[in-house]
Formats: sequence, C-alpha cells, structure tokens
Amino acid sequence: MRAVCVIGLGLIGGSVLRAASAAGRPAWGTTTSADDAEAARADGFDVVEVDAALRRAAAEDAQVVVATPLTAVRGVLREVAEHAPQAWLTDVVSVKDPVAAEVRSLLPQARYAGGHPMAGSSSSGWGASSGHLFSGAAWAVTLEDGTALDAWREAAQLALDCGAQVVPTTAGAHDSAVARISHLPHVFAAILAAVGADGGPLALSLAAGSFRDGTRVAGSPPDLVRAMTEGNRNALLDAVDDALGRLGAARGSLASTGGLKSTVDEGYDARRYLEDLATCDRTTETVRLDAAAPQRLRELGELGGRVVALTDDTATVEVPTAA
Amino acid sequence: MRAVCVIGLGLIGGSVLRAASAAGRPAWGTTTSADDAEAARADGFDVVEVDAALRRAAAEDAQVVVATPLTAVRGVLREVAEHAPQAWLTDVVSVKDPVAAEVRSLLPQARYAGGHPMAGSSSSGWGASSGHLFSGAAWAVTLEDGTALDAWREAAQLALDCGAQVVPTTAGAHDSAVARISHLPHVFAAILAAVGADGGPLALSLAAGSFRDGTRVAGSPPDLVRAMTEGNRNALLDAVDDALGRLGAARGSLASTGGLKSTVDEGYDARRYLEDLATCDRTTETVRLDAAAPQRLRELGELGGRVVALTDDTATVEVPTAA
Repeated sequence: MRAVCVIGLGLIGGSVLRAASAAGRPAWGTTTSADDAEAARADGFDVVEVDAALRRAAAEDAQVVVATPLTAVRGVLREVAEHAPQAWLTDVVSVKDPVAAEVRSLLPQARYAGGHPMAGSSSSGWGASSGHLFSGAAWAVTLEDGTALDAWREAAQLALDCGAQVVPTTAGAHDSAVARISHLPHVFAAILAAVGADGGPLALSLAAGSFRDGTRVAGSPPDLVRAMTEGNRNALLDAVDDALGRLGAARGSLASTGGLKSTVDEGYDARRYLEDLATCDRTTETVRLDAAAPQRLRELGELGGRVVALTDDTATVEVPTAA
Repeated sequence: MRAVCVIGLGLIGGSVLRAASAAGRPAWGTTTSADDAEAARADGFDVVEVDAALRRAAAEDAQVVVATPLTAVRGVLREVAEHAPQAWLTDVVSVKDPVAAEVRSLLPQARYAGGHPMAGSSSSGWGASSGHLFSGAAWAVTLEDGTALDAWREAAQLALDCGAQVVPTTAGAHDSAVARISHLPHVFAAILAAVGADGGPLALSLAAGSFRDGTRVAGSPPDLVRAMTEGNRNALLDAVDDALGRLGAARGSLASTGGLKSTVDEGYDARRYLEDLATCDRTTETVRLDAAAPQRLRELGELGGRVVALTDDTATVEVPTAA
C-alpha cells in the first residue's frame, strides 16, 4: 500500500493520519503546532519536521496530503515543490479552485487531485481527531480534464481507505455546491444566532430545538469559518444572492398576503429530496478507468453518485435512484 | 390536585395529558381526530366528546387546556364559552396575542393565562406524544396587567407538573421572542433547504452536518409550520427584516472587502451567549405572589429567569448570572 504523508495534524489531518494508519498504510505527519505534534506523538504516531516528512515522501513515492487551513497552503506547497516536486498530491481544504490554482502555479509536475472530506466537528486540533471521522462520509475528489487519472485514483483510494465514499467532480462544481450546503449554512447560522440574541435573554431562554440546531455551527472557531467562507467568495456570493432573493420573496408574501406557502412547501420538498437521496435504493455502475472515465465519473457525481470501490482499472459507483 | 381537561390530543396536547396524568392529576381529553382518540384510549386514557369533556371540567372546576392548531382555536373557545365559561383556562398554541384576543372576546369571564411549551418534534399526532416531552423545557405563561394572578398560578402549576420551567412574560414579548428563536429558524431552514436543492444531487450528496442541522425543521409538516409562522405575522416580519438586513450586510462586505468578520464574530458571540445562559450559575429569588408580583416576574423573565417551584403565595425563580 502506498505510504501517506500528512501535512497539518488538526481535526481533519489528524483524522486522515489515524484512518490511513488503521487501514494499514505506512503513514507519518508534520505540523507547525507544537501542541498537535506532542499530542500525536503521545498517541504513538510518527511526527517529524516538514522537510524530513517531505523528503521521506519523495523517497517512498508517498501520497502527500495537505491538511492545513487555506491561508497556509501556499507556504506548504512551496515546501513540497522543494522536497517532493513530483509527489502524488492531494489536499483536504474546503475550497478547491484556489488550491488547484496554487498547485498549477507552484507544482506543475505534481500528480495532483484535490480532495474534500465532508465531515467535521465544531471542535478542532489533534485532540478532536478520530480514525472514524470519515466513515460513510462523502469525500469529493476533483477530476478536471487535465487531471491525470492515476493521480485521481490515488487520491480517491486514500478517501476509500479512510472509510469515505468518493464524489467525482470538478473544482468549480465542488465550490459552487459547498457554497450552498456548507458555507451558506455557516452564514445562516451566524445570522440566526445574532437575530435571536437581539431578542435578549428572554428570547434565548425560550429557544429550543429549531434554534439550537439552526445555530449550532455558529459555535465553530471563527477563524476557520472565515477561512472557509471567505476562501469561496464568488460561489458563496451566488448562494447568498439566491438566499436573499428567497428571503425577500418570503418577506413580500408574508407582508402582502400573509402567506408563506411557497417558502414552506419548497423547503419541505427540498428536505424530503435530501432524505430521499440519502435513503433510496442505489444502482451500481462499473466505470472502466480509460480515457472516457473522467467525463462519465463526473456525470455520475452530478447525479449524486459515489465511488465505493476501486481496482487498478475500474471504479464501482453507486447512484441514488431518486436523483 | 386540580383536574385537567385537554382539548386536542396531538403531539403537544397528548403529551400534556400524559404528563398531567403521570403527575397524579385527574385528567381527560377530547379530540376531533378519530385516530388520535382511538390511540389515546388504547393507551388507557379517558377520551370523550368535547361537550362532555367541558361539562365535566365545569363540574370539577378543572384546568382547561386548548391544544389545537391556531386555526381551530376560535371554534374550541366557543365550545368552552357554552359549557364552561368560567373555566380555569390556558392554551399551548405557539402564538399568544391572537389567542388572548379571542379569549377576551369570547370568554371574558374565563380565568385565563396563555401558555406555550418550547418543546416539539418533527413528528405529530398522539403517536408522537410523550409524558417526558416537557422535561426541563421552557414553558411561557403569559402575565398581562389584566391577568388574574391565580389564573397565571394555575397555568404555571400545570407547566411545572409537566416537568417544565415557567417563563413569565407578556403575549407581545412572547410573540416577538418566538419569531426570532422559533419562527425565523423555520423560515431559514426552508430557504436553506431550497438553496441547497438548487445545487442538485451533487450538492445534496456533499451535504453534511451543517446542512442537515440547518434544514432539519424544514421537514416538519408544512401545515403546522404555516399555521405557526403565518399566525405570528407582524413579529415575524420584524425578525425577517432583521435577518434581511444582516444577510444584506454580509453580502455587501463579502462583495466589497471579501471579509465576513462582523457576521462570523457576531454569530459566534451570540451562540456563546446562548450556551452561557444555558449552563451558567443561577441565582434564586423568591417572589411573593402579591400585587407587585406580575411586574417582578416579568422582569425576571426578561433576564432569562424561570419559575421552578410554586406555593400558594410564592414563586421560586432561577435567574442565570450570565444575563
């Protein structure tokens, strides 16, 4: 099994190191956080300096995983360019276009496919990491026209080894999607929390499940939320505009007719669709990893399909029948 | 212990009947739903026709609890006016001003204090009811200048007997508060679900905790959500306008400077405040139930205070120190 070198040992990077090790892959990590390094070593993991980690990655032809905040990615990629310029490379950063642009610029020879596991927690750091964090989760792995299929396959195999299911997509499609289902939810949670708090202790004393659920991720570390949302500016603006249009329409309907039928019904149908997609029957398609594979895999990703197994020359994709 | 007559045996009314019975109070109910009636009888509860239920309430000087949707309240109050016009009366409807107005109009002699338990579920009907639904929950009981203190005390005692803690407030303050912490969350959940679904199966396939939590209550029965939100139109418009202003400001900041610092920081602080209020130390104040009590109880309610015990002439109020 290909070795794994994880750069950044917070919640996500730490969980990758744990899960890859548990899957039997040789794995080591590096981090600029003395606390995370000490905690990871205390848990029995191999943590070294970044240059040593990357030289070993080059020597062992390892998969390098960039697991730092977006703001630290450029510096890390410069280190990779110095020590392992042809590495098998992926990342787990929550936006994909900006990372892909940096890789094209700094590491044109790297065998890169971007990644994003859709799992998290409102806690952070190695102490919050878990080898089970990705079990059953979606993990986007980007597949552009210029992506080498073997680079995608290696990044996807890591996701499978971590217990996740792979969603094949492009960086642009990924960024648009997560603006809607991850970044806008964080903006909404923050605004909902603030509007509630404007009601004072009386309002917060009356708050129950709908408010607690709707504001939960507002408790996430602000610097991480800002890095994630601000890093996906253009796609998030589109999602915010969609939300503003819908909220304005709801306001207009409530003010003029007193009714919220369209808003409530569309929300109900959308939530049902989410649940149907998650629970419906799936068909299985085997995609041969040839020149036609990237387009077919992306098409299946658009339909909600997830890669659940890989061989050297095939991908097994499960596609929800409700799509 | 005063007997309890529950009108409407869905999730909330059914849970009141169960909890009041479990507390040792004589209790019976009535419902227009044949399914709920049959299910409640099968569980061993006393379910009769509405006129019989109310005549018995008058004969036993019982506490009558209106637990129907807002749209059915007027018809129920007409029945109460016919059979038990001087009843001890409360309700568990999610808006308080409209119910209070109907009571003033139809039942000027009733000994009424409005109520609203802040507990629920996305399921409905007797089958979803539970005698533990209200354990530890907030339960608003309205106390206007014109409310008879003994009527408030009786309604509050029922809430305590159901395991809840009583938030003393006015109908108007309640309706403004729940617009922010219950009705706006339902509108936000619906809009978030729709914006996510606009991203198609790919986006929903990538959706994880933040989207699932933020859209959970969009799966509630649309007719109940509409009754609740549309029934609190004016207060909800204020909350929606607050949200629109904040979302527009976030949009402007993201578009112009690329930053979301104010939005994210204010949301984080608000969520922390919610958690602090829920977990901080509490001071205990004993309020004598005299002519000055209504104002003092409402003041403590504004500070997040909750009545946790009642005697004939005192209320014990716990007030969070973080307020």
